[in-house]
Amino acid sequence: MCSPQAMATVQRAITRRRFLGAAGSTGALAVLGGVGRPQSAALQGAATPGATPVIAPLGTPIATGCFGSVLDLTHTITPDFPVFPGSEQFQANVLVRVEQDGFYKSQLVLDEHTGTHMDAPAHFDANGPKADTLPVANFVAPLAVIDVAARAAANDDYQVTVDDILAWEAQNSALPEGAFVAMHSGWEARLATPGAFLNADAGGTLHFPGFAPDAAAFLVEERSIVGIGVDTISLDFGASTDFATHLTVLPAGKYGLENLANLSVAPPVGATLVVGGPKHLNASGGPSRVLALF
Amino acid sequence: MCSPQAMATVQRAITRRRFLGAAGSTGALAVLGGVGRPQSAALQGAATPGATPVIAPLGTPIATGCFGSVLDLTHTITPDFPVFPGSEQFQANVLVRVEQDGFYKSQLVLDEHTGTHMDAPAHFDANGPKADTLPVANFVAPLAVIDVAARAAANDDYQVTVDDILAWEAQNSALPEGAFVAMHSGWEARLATPGAFLNADAGGTLHFPGFAPDAAAFLVEERSIVGIGVDTISLDFGASTDFATHLTVLPAGKYGLENLANLSVAPPVGATLVVGGPKHLNASGGPSRVLALF
Repeated sequence: MCSPQAMATVQRAITRRRFLGAAGSTGALAVLGGVGRPQSAALQGAATPGATPVIAPLGTPIATGCFGSVLDLTHTITPDFPVFPGSEQFQANVLVRVEQDGFYKSQLVLDEHTGTHMDAPAHFDANGPKADTLPVANFVAPLAVIDVAARAAANDDYQVTVDDILAWEAQNSALPEGAFVAMHSGWEARLATPGAFLNADAGGTLHFPGFAPDAAAFLVEERSIVGIGVDTISLDFGASTDFATHLTVLPAGKYGLENLANLSVAPPVGATLVVGGPKHLNASGGPSRVLALF
Repeated sequence: MCSPQAMATVQRAITRRRFLGAAGSTGALAVLGGVGRPQSAALQGAATPGATPVIAPLGTPIATGCFGSVLDLTHTITPDFPVFPGSEQFQANVLVRVEQDGFYKSQLVLDEHTGTHMDAPAHFDANGPKADTLPVANFVAPLAVIDVAARAAANDDYQVTVDDILAWEAQNSALPEGAFVAMHSGWEARLATPGAFLNADAGGTLHFPGFAPDAAAFLVEERSIVGIGVDTISLDFGASTDFATHLTVLPAGKYGLENLANLSVAPPVGATLVVGGPKHLNASGGPSRVLALF
């Protein structure tokens, strides 16, 4: 994002959000464009539910090239982090401790689809690439954030529409080639309330937002994308019974990212996503460290 | 890495390596600076032992800002990937399959210190930050690759010296502020031969290169670094009994990366490292997707 024009676009978008009072559900202030040593520890905190999400200035101009800030779009995985019904919770078993053994480490036991994680095409397509064989060039992509938080606040079953995508384009730009398109629904705030993130009704049906299958088809067929992402636990909305959005996106060779964090403070346009995706053999997906640089 | 000067430095370094016939132990050609859609699937392959390491052109100018290429410094974790003696091998247990269940996923069971992975300060310092609380600004850093492959080929117990660091600076530039300093020993080629990577002798002592403790102290005290990395399984050389390099680097708040891949084709100077480090609660470290952008 070198050009003054692109930087101005991001600054405008951020300023607009800030004035609209939507600069983050936790009220975080977006610190943009600072280049130099991080100014304080408070600027560098991790993205955890309830904590202040932060945009950290990068270390040095030499480090950053034309990027001045990094934003962590990753939740901390804990034994309590919501998983899809029927899945096992994350477990960490301490093996050795510094005090007794001179060093500290744990064994991890987890479902691949835990925390902020990738769905590789192979998750729904027996012939699709696994996470470990996806082209790494697709892990660095222009990030487009579509904000549907107001609509999702009024409708737990909200699905991102083709019109939402067209409205984003009208407000920002045509979706760039090889874009990664993320839904910001505001669902992250619900992690603070047990049960509210999955939001199951009395019958066990889940209620949270996702991408509508026809919007997913539009992105796959009419635009050039590497993948889509959500701040909920599934690309499909919670009440889906056919996983039509997964079945549209993944067999097309695109990847998904679920449980993204801090999208409320990500610029809608102009950031570059860098996906630290999993790389174990035959990965259907897995926990991923996801960063936005801008 | 925007400036023509910086780009010229990288080009010179790569050209020098190529003419020296050291452009990669597997003979991979470094494709630099290509901006545009990836030219072929062959350009995008994963970094696995025995496979051709590749530098993938990024998708689009919009995606890349001033970076034109991405190189995957990450090995694929397999059940056979070497682990430290006494540690459990990685396990993936398939839970469901597309053919029978409509989707595919696995349970993972692993030691945090498996594959290409991070050592957080807390790995050796009870009061040090865990991987999940390290400042994310430190995960984007200028990469310096110190090539000691010739010396390591002649001495399995080779340790990177202060002189190696000074020689790198004389040849390239002063180490940038907030640098990540990686040792390229050529040890990756040994992954193809069972036992050769850990290289235990009859008495069980391991023999592989690492950073000498005084070189680690020099980096921590005399230079500004975020961390150090190696293409072997430990920051300390294999025969170490006191883990003095770990104990110098980690309690200073720096992180380590072990089992890095493809350093033979990384530019010695000018690339930006992006570390997709682990983010589970209380992480002593964990598998990381490590990318170099240039």
